[in-house]
This record gives sequence, structure tokens and C-alpha cells, in this order.
Amino acid sequence: MDYTIGDAFLSEVMGTGMLILLGAGVVANVILPKNKGFDGGWLLINFGWGLAVFSGVYVAYKSGAHLNPAVTMGIWTSGAEEFAPGVPVTAANGFLYVTAQIAGAAIGAALAFLAYKKHFDEDADGATKLAVFSTGPAIRSYGWNFVTEAIATFVLVFVILAFAKTPAELGAIPVALLVIGIGASLGGPTGYAINPARDFGPRIAHALLPIRGKGSSDWAYSWVPILGPLVGGAIAGLVASVYIV
Amino acid sequence: MDYTIGDAFLSEVMGTGMLILLGAGVVANVILPKNKGFDGGWLLINFGWGLAVFSGVYVAYKSGAHLNPAVTMGIWTSGAEEFAPGVPVTAANGFLYVTAQIAGAAIGAALAFLAYKKHFDEDADGATKLAVFSTGPAIRSYGWNFVTEAIATFVLVFVILAFAKTPAELGAIPVALLVIGIGASLGGPTGYAINPARDFGPRIAHALLPIRGKGSSDWAYSWVPILGPLVGGAIAGLVASVYIV
Amino acid sequence: MDYTIGDAFLSEVMGTGMLILLGAGVVANVILPKNKGFDGGWLLINFGWGLAVFSGVYVAYKSGAHLNPAVTMGIWTSGAEEFAPGVPVTAANGFLYVTAQIAGAAIGAALAFLAYKKHFDEDADGATKLAVFSTGPAIRSYGWNFVTEAIATFVLVFVILAFAKTPAELGAIPVALLVIGIGASLGGPTGYAINPARDFGPRIAHALLPIRGKGSSDWAYSWVPILGPLVGGAIAGLVASVYIV
Amino acid sequence: MDYTIGDAFLSEVMGTGMLILLGAGVVANVILPKNKGFDGGWLLINFGWGLAVFSGVYVAYKSGAHLNPAVTMGIWTSGAEEFAPGVPVTAANGFLYVTAQIAGAAIGAALAFLAYKKHFDEDADGATKLAVFSTGPAIRSYGWNFVTEAIATFVLVFVILAFAKTPAELGAIPVALLVIGIGASLGGPTGYAINPARDFGPRIAHALLPIRGKGSSDWAYSWVPILGPLVGGAIAGLVASVYIV
Repeated sequence: MDYTIGDAFLSEVMGTGMLILLGAGVVANVILPKNKGFDGGWLLINFGWGLAVFSGVYVAYKSGAHLNPAVTMGIWTSGAEEFAPGVPVTAANGFLYVTAQIAGAAIGAALAFLAYKKHFDEDADGATKLAVFSTGPAIRSYGWNFVTEAIATFVLVFVILAFAKTPAELGAIPVALLVIGIGASLGGPTGYAINPARDFGPRIAHALLPIRGKGSSDWAYSWVPILGPLVGGAIAGLVASVYIV
Repeated sequence: MDYTIGDAFLSEVMGTGMLILLGAGVVANVILPKNKGFDGGWLLINFGWGLAVFSGVYVAYKSGAHLNPAVTMGIWTSGAEEFAPGVPVTAANGFLYVTAQIAGAAIGAALAFLAYKKHFDEDADGATKLAVFSTGPAIRSYGWNFVTEAIATFVLVFVILAFAKTPAELGAIPVALLVIGIGASLGGPTGYAINPARDFGPRIAHALLPIRGKGSSDWAYSWVPILGPLVGGAIAGLVASVYIV
Repeated sequence: MDYTIGDAFLSEVMGTGMLILLGAGVVANVILPKNKGFDGGWLLINFGWGLAVFSGVYVAYKSGAHLNPAVTMGIWTSGAEEFAPGVPVTAANGFLYVTAQIAGAAIGAALAFLAYKKHFDEDADGATKLAVFSTGPAIRSYGWNFVTEAIATFVLVFVILAFAKTPAELGAIPVALLVIGIGASLGGPTGYAINPARDFGPRIAHALLPIRGKGSSDWAYSWVPILGPLVGGAIAGLVASVYIV
Repeated sequence: MDYTIGDAFLSEVMGTGMLILLGAGVVANVILPKNKGFDGGWLLINFGWGLAVFSGVYVAYKSGAHLNPAVTMGIWTSGAEEFAPGVPVTAANGFLYVTAQIAGAAIGAALAFLAYKKHFDEDADGATKLAVFSTGPAIRSYGWNFVTEAIATFVLVFVILAFAKTPAELGAIPVALLVIGIGASLGGPTGYAINPARDFGPRIAHALLPIRGKGSSDWAYSWVPILGPLVGGAIAGLVASVYIV
């Protein structure tokens, strides 16, 4: 079935919103005080994000469920002709996809804020509250953090492109497992943004929302989880264009 | 294959009973003294509930496996014509579904009580023993607890309705993963009832059963996990009626 | 494709051996000293056993992969005509299935002993070493332990019988998830034998093997994880014979 | 679709590289200082490796996704005629597969080193840093460590060969679950190499890379995770050649 770019725009907003509502949610659950999942461990966070993608993909069925500018980038550099059935690969459509993703991510983060409002009202340092919204490095080193994000996003986009070569009727399960795996395996140094919208949209929401005891939105780091994933995704698409044929 | 409303009623009783037997069971395992899974963590609870839904859905194959008044509500507001093959959407049938779900949930809770009888006989405070049956908030705030339950249930019902647009032969696996994800991501503040029957049926069982050292059944909170999920489910159905087409 | 009872016998030995090699293995990993998975938590044990069943089922494809006298019992009481394609339900065949399951379980336990030999040579009390082989109750109460085993096995067998009503090409994944769920939800009080062969075969192996610092094989408890599962499985088959039609 | 041995060679390099990037990555995340997944537990490691295989298998779709000399060995001893569609079983092709696997594993380990560069720069003892690359025994005993590796690899290869008898469209999910299960159940004593390339390729990378505070590459142990898996895989293929028919 074919969709219009209008359908696809709304679909990316809804799907990315779902992704970030659940993704920011699991971080809030694990790091904000008094939650039932407090200190629940890294695997819990990995499952939360993996299943957030899972849910977002089902919701965004009209747009091919990119939910991520790095995926849109990788599809573009891979030489594909359509972003989704009926939606051709053009600069204008790419711009609309990315805009929708960032908007959806900001909305999702705001909803997660509402779901965890009373826990945001508790005492916690500003960096902890920011971490519900956006990623930050374990060891700050812009260059190496960039490398980590680029490698991890290469894995994401390249394996997604490879899925197409193995027939199976598995819905959104493979990408959910892939994201759980990337989080487990490559999330240690930077918290695996692997998606510019996932980091930038919620950072905007963090800057705008009336969060008690809010600290810096750490804009100095914000370019790393934007450029790293875009570069990793672009390379993945290029490699796929010669390897996955 | 078509079923009668009588088939569907029994199916909802059996399926919701299975759901709560396993769901209350995992909570008992993690929070009641001397259990082998004691203090096993939030992800263990998330898997327990997700796979409880998984099992309940297979058992309730004659009724469309709602197992949840919020799902029944969402199917109704989405404009569907049947609750299950051969069972039309009518007020009477909706009432019977909800009745069956609450009855099944109470029965399931009683069975979980039997399975964990010796652990209920150990010393533990009343709130802990209640928590095996029904949810309670991490920070009591009826309004915000309502918001959390409504958002989480919106996710549940909306994504279930979206499943229908992605063909795959996956049985009950997607809904199980969805429930694991919602628990991980949105369960922190209220323990994710996301299902009025899941909370109300076992609360009745708690009030009736001869539990050693039983405390209050906390009826003051009981409306939150009823109305929050119903409102979230109703909104999900309405949004789906315009978005998922 | 049809198989002979000889094929089925070997298949049950191999599959149950695989099941217990991996199932006893995960317990050894978590409770014997110096292992890399030492103290890895209940969910790790649940996954280990669930995926042990997963592997055993693939290996036992010639016999319908019962791997469990309670499943054989439940298939019999459900009124089925064949244990596996070409293998009719008869008392003699049932006896051979159970014999194969117990033999396979004992062999699997011996292989797990070899895989963990150096860790069995470390100091640990006898009950810990026994727990790698066979289950024991958290709170000893033969009657209630029986109830827990019967309920948990009812869930196992009843849901397996219900799987047949939901078409899906999922191999052994549903039963693996079911076993993970039962372990999470109903494994707390007795360690979820839910399978007479899983408990009895390894207990024989424990009695025979030259284990350093070996304590009692606790035969006084051994009837509970035999009779409880058989009764639960038989009831499941009977209920299924009227409900799952 | 048929592929050439050249396609297959590149496919094994890429797939095994992906496998080790993610597999070494999860170990780095859990054991190197300051990572977000530090001390995240054995199940996290099991999921990381299982999903590393998952990703590698999708990438290596042109070569049958062996990714492991023990799998190549088992396919050979099982009497199969092709390593992949269009690639016959010959000694030369087997040699090329194994070479590609070792090269890919070394490359993947180097990429994991880059992704975790800043964490390798932190203080940690040499054995910890080696453990990101290669396995080591919990209790050093070459003979018993060999037994454990052979048993665990037998399980891997035998169950993979059994998958072929159960029709399902599940992509790489079954092998991912199998590897999670083997790690949980049989990984305790030796860290489950179960793959000579997985251990040998990264050990070469460890010897070559400029790792801060690097200790010994422990070549004395290196034959165990090579010969153990090869023997286990060969036996699995032989048993399969008579059992899985």
C-alpha cells in the first residue's frame, strides 16, 4: 500500500514519539529516585530501549519506521529509491522525515516527563535529570565519543539493511533485538544515542520544560550524538550499496 | 472460526485467570520472604508479567484474548465491529467481558495465593502482602498516578491496535514483548496496572482471602488503576480510529 | 513424517539429555563457587532452563519433544491419539517415553557434572551440590510443595496444549518463553521441577556419581516433584479435553 | 541464490567481524572501568554475545553464516555437500572459511578496542584487559577446560544442525537464543569460547594492538579454546550424520 509524504510525516512523529516516551521512560525508571525500577541495571535499560523501538516501529508502519535520521541517511546513501512505499527519496522528503523525527522525539520526552512528574520533583542532581532526556559520555572525549557513536550506528544501520536479505515474518522483533544488542555491547562509553533525533529532540524538551532543579542541557556535547550517528549511518549505507546486493 | 458469547466469557475467565496466576506469582516470588527469586529485580518482574500475558493470550483464543477492560474499551472506541469472531460489539457483551475478566483475575490471584501459601505465612508487612495482589504508587499522588496509568495504557492499547497493520505469524509474542517494554519503561511510578481487572479482581481476592497478617486492601487508591487505564484505553481506540486505517 | 517407537525412544533420551545438561548447567553456573555466572540471579536461571527446553525440543523432533512425563501424561489424558507422528498413545509407549526421559535426564546430569567438574571439586555444602541435580523446597512442607508443583505443571501442560490453537511458525520459541515465565512466576517455593524426569533422573545420577563432599540425595522429598507434576499434567489434559476443542 | 567462494570469504570476514565487535564490546562494557554497563552481570554478557551472533548471522548471509571454525568442522563431518549455496565442501574452501573467520575476528576485536579506547586507557590489570579479547578459565585445568569447551560446542553445533528439521521462518533468532542459553548454562568454567576464531583472532589482535598496561596474551591457554571447540564440533557433525536424518 502506498502512503503520502503527509502520512509519512505524521507516522514518523507518532513512531518517534512512542520510541522516546518508552526510551526516556526506562531511563527515568532506573535513575530517578523512588521508582520501582530504581537501580535496575543495564540490561533493564537495554530491554527498555529495544522494546521502545519495537513499539515505535509498529506505530510508524506508514513511513517505513525510520524513527532516526541516521537510518534515513543510510537508506539514502545505500541508493534506495523510496523511503517508504509511495514516498520517493528526495532531499525535501528527507528533510521532512528528520523534522518529524525531532518533533516526535521532543513530544515523547515531554510525555515521559509527565509520566514521571512526581519523580522529577524529587531531589536529584541536574545531570541525572538530563540523562533521562539525552545521552552523555562516561568519559568525556569528544573525538573518541564520536568514534563510538559512529561505530555503533554503523552496526545499527548496516544490520537493518542486511535484514532485507533474510526472509522472515518477524515484524519489529529483529530490530528490537538488534537495539538490545547494541546497547549491551556498544552502549558503555556514550549511552548509545545512535540516533540524532533521539538525543536532540529530548534535549530541546529538556531546555524548554519546567523541570525542578534542572541543570545544564549540555549543548557542548550535543553535536557528538548528532554527527557520530549521521556519519556511521552514511557509511553503513555506502558499504551496503556495494556489499548487500 | 466463530464462537458464542458463552465461549468468550469462559475464555476470558480462563485467560485472565492464567494472567493473574503468573503475574501475581512473579511479584510473590520477588517480594515475599524466603523465595528463590527473592529480590530478583525489576526486569524479572517485567518478564514475569510479560510472559503471564503471553500464556493468558494463548489460553483465551476463543475471545480474542482481551484479558483487560481497557483493551475491551479501546476496541470499542476504535469502532471495531466484533470483540472476537462471532461476538459483536454490544454493551451487553462488553459488560460480560469485563465481568469475566474481573472474576478470572480474582480466581488467578487466589491460585497464586495457594502456590505461595507458605510464603504468605511468613512475617512480612501488610503492604508487601497486598502488593502481590494489587498495585500501589511509589509516590502517592492520585492525579499524577492517574496520568501515568493513562499514558501507559494508551501505549498498550494503541500498539496492540497497530499490530494488526504489520503482517506476521508471531502468536502472542508481540504483546508479551510490549508488556515487558511497558513495565520496564512506564512501570516505575505506579507498578503498571494498565488493566482495571488486573488490579480490581485481585484486590477483591485480597479482601476475601484468609491471609496471615493481612493489612488494608487500600481501597482509597483502587479507583486510579481502574479509571486511568480505562481513559488511556478509550483514547487509544479513538486515536486509532483515525490514525490506524 | 512418521517415526517408530524406537526413533521416539532415542529422541526422548537425546532431547531430555540436552535439556538437563543445559538446565543443570545453569544452576551449577549460578551456585557453585568460582563460576563466571556465580550469583547471577533468578532471571539468569529462568533463561537457562527456558533455553534448555528450547534446545531439547529441537533435538527431540522425532518424538514430539515431550521431554517430561507430565507432558506425556497430559497428552494421554487430553484424549490425543498419537504421542508423535506414527507413535500411538498406548501404555507401553507411554512407559517407554518415561523411561527414555528418566535415562536421558540422568545422562544429561552426568554431562553437566563433567562440564563443571572442577567446580564440584571446590568446597560447598552438600545441599548446594545436590541443587545442581534436583529441586528442593524453599520452605519444606510436602503438602504445599505438592500444590505448588501441581499448579505450575498445570500451567505448563495446559498452555502447551493451547498452543495448538494459535497458528504460528515459531519452532520451540513459545515453549521456551513459557518455561521462562513459569520459572519467574511460580518457581519461588520449590524451584519448579514441573517434570518428574527432570528431578528423578538427576537424583539418580547424584546418588551414583563420585561427587566430592556429596551429601544426602534427599529421597524423602523426591516424591513431591514426581507426583505433583503428574497430577498437574493429568488435570491439564483433562481440562483441555473439554476446553480446548 | 548461489554465491562464489570469494563472496563467501568476504561474508565470513564481515559477519565474524560484526560478531566480535559486539561480543568483545559487551565484555568491555561489563568489565572495563567507568562503563555504563560496568558490573552488569552474566545475563547481560549472555545477551550481548547471543545478539552479537544474531547480528553477525544477518551480515554473513552469503556464506551460510558459519562465523566459527567449529561450525565449519561440524558441517563437514555431518556429510553436507555445500558450506553455502554454490560453495562446495572442500578442504580448500574450509581453509578459506577458517582464515576469513580468524581475520574477521581480529578486525572486530580491533574495532571494539576503538569503541572502548578511553576505557582501555583507564587503570585495570592486564588479565582484565585481555578478557575483552579472549577467554580464560575460572579454574585453570587444561584437561577439564577442554572437556567443558568440547561439550558446550557439541551443543552449539548439534542443535544448529537440528534446527534444519523444524520448519520456521525465524531468521537468526534461534541461533541467538541458543548462544544465550549456552552462555547461561555452560559458560561458567571457561567463558564459553565455543569458537576457535572467536578466541584466536582477538588474541592476535591483543598481541598486536597498543593497549595501555597490556599484560600477557596467555598463549599457554590458547590451544584449549581452539581444540576443544573443534573436537566438540566434529563430534556433533558425526552424531548428526547418523541421528539427524
